[in-house]
Amino acid sequence: METRGVAAWLRRALHEHDTPLGRRFDSVLQVVILISLAGVTLASLRGMPPLAYTALAAVEVVTMALFTIEYVLRVATAGNRRAYIFSFWGIVDFLAIFPYYFLNDSQWVRALRFLRIFRLLRHNRAVARFAQAFRESKSELVVFGTTALIMLFVAAAGIYQFEHEAQPEAFGSIPESLWWAIVTLTTVGYGDVYPVTPMGRVFTGFVMIVGLGVVAGFTGVIASALTRARDKS
Amino acid sequence: METRGVAAWLRRALHEHDTPLGRRFDSVLQVVILISLAGVTLASLRGMPPLAYTALAAVEVVTMALFTIEYVLRVATAGNRRAYIFSFWGIVDFLAIFPYYFLNDSQWVRALRFLRIFRLLRHNRAVARFAQAFRESKSELVVFGTTALIMLFVAAAGIYQFEHEAQPEAFGSIPESLWWAIVTLTTVGYGDVYPVTPMGRVFTGFVMIVGLGVVAGFTGVIASALTRARDKS
Amino acid sequence: METRGVAAWLRRALHEHDTPLGRRFDSVLQVVILISLAGVTLASLRGMPPLAYTALAAVEVVTMALFTIEYVLRVATAGNRRAYIFSFWGIVDFLAIFPYYFLNDSQWVRALRFLRIFRLLRHNRAVARFAQAFRESKSELVVFGTTALIMLFVAAAGIYQFEHEAQPEAFGSIPESLWWAIVTLTTVGYGDVYPVTPMGRVFTGFVMIVGLGVVAGFTGVIASALTRARDKS
Amino acid sequence: METRGVAAWLRRALHEHDTPLGRRFDSVLQVVILISLAGVTLASLRGMPPLAYTALAAVEVVTMALFTIEYVLRVATAGNRRAYIFSFWGIVDFLAIFPYYFLNDSQWVRALRFLRIFRLLRHNRAVARFAQAFRESKSELVVFGTTALIMLFVAAAGIYQFEHEAQPEAFGSIPESLWWAIVTLTTVGYGDVYPVTPMGRVFTGFVMIVGLGVVAGFTGVIASALTRARDKS
Repeated sequence: METRGVAAWLRRALHEHDTPLGRRFDSVLQVVILISLAGVTLASLRGMPPLAYTALAAVEVVTMALFTIEYVLRVATAGNRRAYIFSFWGIVDFLAIFPYYFLNDSQWVRALRFLRIFRLLRHNRAVARFAQAFRESKSELVVFGTTALIMLFVAAAGIYQFEHEAQPEAFGSIPESLWWAIVTLTTVGYGDVYPVTPMGRVFTGFVMIVGLGVVAGFTGVIASALTRARDKS
Repeated sequence: METRGVAAWLRRALHEHDTPLGRRFDSVLQVVILISLAGVTLASLRGMPPLAYTALAAVEVVTMALFTIEYVLRVATAGNRRAYIFSFWGIVDFLAIFPYYFLNDSQWVRALRFLRIFRLLRHNRAVARFAQAFRESKSELVVFGTTALIMLFVAAAGIYQFEHEAQPEAFGSIPESLWWAIVTLTTVGYGDVYPVTPMGRVFTGFVMIVGLGVVAGFTGVIASALTRARDKS
Repeated sequence: METRGVAAWLRRALHEHDTPLGRRFDSVLQVVILISLAGVTLASLRGMPPLAYTALAAVEVVTMALFTIEYVLRVATAGNRRAYIFSFWGIVDFLAIFPYYFLNDSQWVRALRFLRIFRLLRHNRAVARFAQAFRESKSELVVFGTTALIMLFVAAAGIYQFEHEAQPEAFGSIPESLWWAIVTLTTVGYGDVYPVTPMGRVFTGFVMIVGLGVVAGFTGVIASALTRARDKS
Repeated sequence: METRGVAAWLRRALHEHDTPLGRRFDSVLQVVILISLAGVTLASLRGMPPLAYTALAAVEVVTMALFTIEYVLRVATAGNRRAYIFSFWGIVDFLAIFPYYFLNDSQWVRALRFLRIFRLLRHNRAVARFAQAFRESKSELVVFGTTALIMLFVAAAGIYQFEHEAQPEAFGSIPESLWWAIVTLTTVGYGDVYPVTPMGRVFTGFVMIVGLGVVAGFTGVIASALTRARDKS
């Protein structure tokens, strides 16, 4: 009887988000996420006393343990375990925690840990409305995404033809030229790589103008999706 | 009787903005603000004759005195003193003036002085309409702001993992990497720091694309808020 | 009688734009403008044979003479001379031509000559529709323009406080810091000047975010003005 | 009888896109395009074993042969040959293939080969809807395009006047200054060329602000075209 009561209480705490109990649990977990993120951030600073690093490592171990317990309990108490494990948030939870135990602690694994942060946005109504708007504009976004990817490839392949003789170190191959292409098409323009030949510059001019069109179209799709989401709510 | 008449006149001059008297006062104050700003700007120039710097210092003292008198009178004549002191404009007025007297004249204090300039926009109807539009879109803007902050942190934390070994001086810690993150996500791209490792560049590509989405969403929210504000008026 | 017929014909040719005669005249003038611009462009190239420069100088003199004759005839045949001389296009025509004769041929005067090019857009219906849309959004655009100017000044004044000790050559005075401010707020980000102090970078982060808002608002105002212009037509 | 049956089958396979047969053919061709693009991309990488380059050259020859056969069959089986040859896709198909055979294998010819990639977007419904939206906004887009071109030229011609004495290598002529103009107006801002004279910087400030207006207008036109396209469908 006892155990069953605990299990039911846990199920409600972890899987319900509209009840006072569920909301209190969500708040506690968000605070733990913020503590864990603050710990990782502080641990990256240099020049602190050794004790501080020890304390931050302890914070890391404790928060990691809490997330692991949370994940195990979520799986254990889920009505439909498979559905939870393979849901969007189930995968995020898994990727943020388990590579830490099973893989060597490489860069990738550490970067994955920051996925936890997106859980701060879970159960937010405005986020849900946006998600709905994006789901409805899916076909436009897929087309824009595909077009942008094609543009990216065409830009990289074209600049490679025009510039790789003049600048073999910056435009050494088509995959390496993709760096220039993404920096240019998003209009970031660091200036670490740029064309120097006349033909490369003319080509870049066209790439920039088409890129502006893709950015404008992307903005237009999102803006109209948001306007519709607003009108409905 | 006399004093009371002066007080009433001052109250009307300082707290009413739809009467001819109030409007005339506002205009005079805006001219004083412009003079004070022109003075600070000119005082930053080098190579002028010493007399000019003396004159500009005098302008500074006089305008500061006028703003101080104005603030004291505003508080003195306000119907509800507390309400004024803790209102948005009350705090702006205080921050723009009083640190000058009570704190050493540091950079922060000087920068605060430029807050005055925003009073040029006070009592403008179009500004009020925009403010209304933004207030109505508050929940969207909060979500976008939060998402942008999370993106900023994820970008900084991720690039730190990928680049801090290759470029320890540019990506020395997560807080230091935030500089790169904000310069990249706003598409400014100065080019003083940029990734050089293949993994860092792939990660940056994703950051740029998601950043474009946040910028587009932000534009969309503001554009639709302005359209609605326009339709109502 | 003869002269009067010529005058009437000229008036129709120069001041009417919906008649076949007027349209033919407009086309001829646009061709002359394009020839004159092509001449100036070619004349800026180095390394051509001397004869080419002589020929291009001749093109310049001839097209300038044609524009001068056109302007004199426009004034002479205008129904209301004052109205024409002080109209938008009357001023453009004057600035594009007469400084060439009356002022030493300085940079400014040469740059003014390029104003002619905007006449290529005169009498275009789509342009007129846009102009109408912008006229209706005037109050929003003025507010955004003013806000942008204030932001520009605050950015320049703030960065001057934070950076001028660390980088006296780049941020020597508030007017000099305006260059950094405009390059940053428009998200161009050349990278020739950028903050290096921690406080300057934090301040720049805020400037970039607010700048993004101004850009988004500007886009929103123009987008909604264009949508309305479209709906009406 | 036999030949006729094959011809009819080919016509259906190549020119029909709503039938199962046509759709299967389209899918096969898209896979061939992807293989050919992957081959060209891999072939640009250095440091692979010689055998790999030989294999990639073989992939290139085979895919090129397939595209050539496809083009010849398309022309042969088209109901109206002229209409197909001079249609948009007919020209794309021709430019992507035949220069390979008839012209020396120069940069231009290689870059043209990437045109094939756009065939990945053919027969997509969302693309067709966008194309329709753009066709309806044609007059606005033409006006914005023309205005942008004029701005580009005015920017290049103006900066040439202001900067070519200070920086003769970067702003050597008006055509050379166009590189700076496009990099600045699209807000990419590599930072390889930028103005250094006070007058050049003031001029650049105006160019940037006007450029922001053109970008905003462009975004507005596309956004409103997409909203309309969405409302109709």
